[in-house]
Amino acid sequence: MAEQAQEKLPENVVFVGMKPPMAYVLGVVTQLSNGQKQVFLKARGRSISKAVDVAEIVRRKFVQDIRVSSIDIGTEERSLENGQKINVSTISIAIGK
Amino acid sequence: MAEQAQEKLPENVVFVGMKPPMAYVLGVVTQLSNGQKQVFLKARGRSISKAVDVAEIVRRKFVQDIRVSSIDIGTEERSLENGQKINVSTISIAIGK
Repeated sequence: MAEQAQEKLPENVVFVGMKPPMAYVLGVVTQLSNGQKQVFLKARGRSISKAVDVAEIVRRKFVQDIRVSSIDIGTEERSLENGQKINVSTISIAIGK
Repeated sequence: MAEQAQEKLPENVVFVGMKPPMAYVLGVVTQLSNGQKQVFLKARGRSISKAVDVAEIVRRKFVQDIRVSSIDIGTEERSLENGQKINVSTISIAIGK
C-alpha cells in the first residue's frame, strides 16, 4: 500500500530546476498526453520564475483548452552545510483541463 | 474623473524590480498600514521569484491575519531595441485581509 503510494506520487508533478524551460514543458505535455487530468509544476527559489515561464509556454503554445487552475506559494526551511537555516520560497502551479 | 483614476491607480500596487526584497516588503506594509485592504505585488521575468519572496516575508514576519487572496500569471510581449519581440512572464499577487 505504502509502496504503491510512493510510486504514484510523483507522476503528475514536474519539479522545475536547472534545465532549460523546454525540458519541463516537454515533461508537462507528456504527462497530459498520457491522460493526467492535472499536472503540478513545483519550484523553489530562483527557479520560481522559470516555473511560471513553463506554465505560460504550455498554456499558450502547446496544449489547447488547458488552464492554470490554482497557484500556491509557501516557504520551506532549509539547512545549509554550516548548520545555518535559511527560508526558501516555493511555488506550486496546477495546470489542467 | 480620468485624472483622479490615474492618481489612484498605482496606490495599492507595488512593482517588484531590482531593489532588495525588504524595500518592497516595506512598500506593502506601508500601504496596508495606510488602510489599503488589498495590495498587488507585480513583477516580470526574473523578478517573479523576488515577488514571491516579498509576499512570503510580509505574510510570515510582518502583518498578522494577512493572506494571499489570489495569484495570476500571464505573458507580455516586449520589443527589444533591434525590433525583435520577446515574451516575458508576469505575476500579480494580491495580498489582503
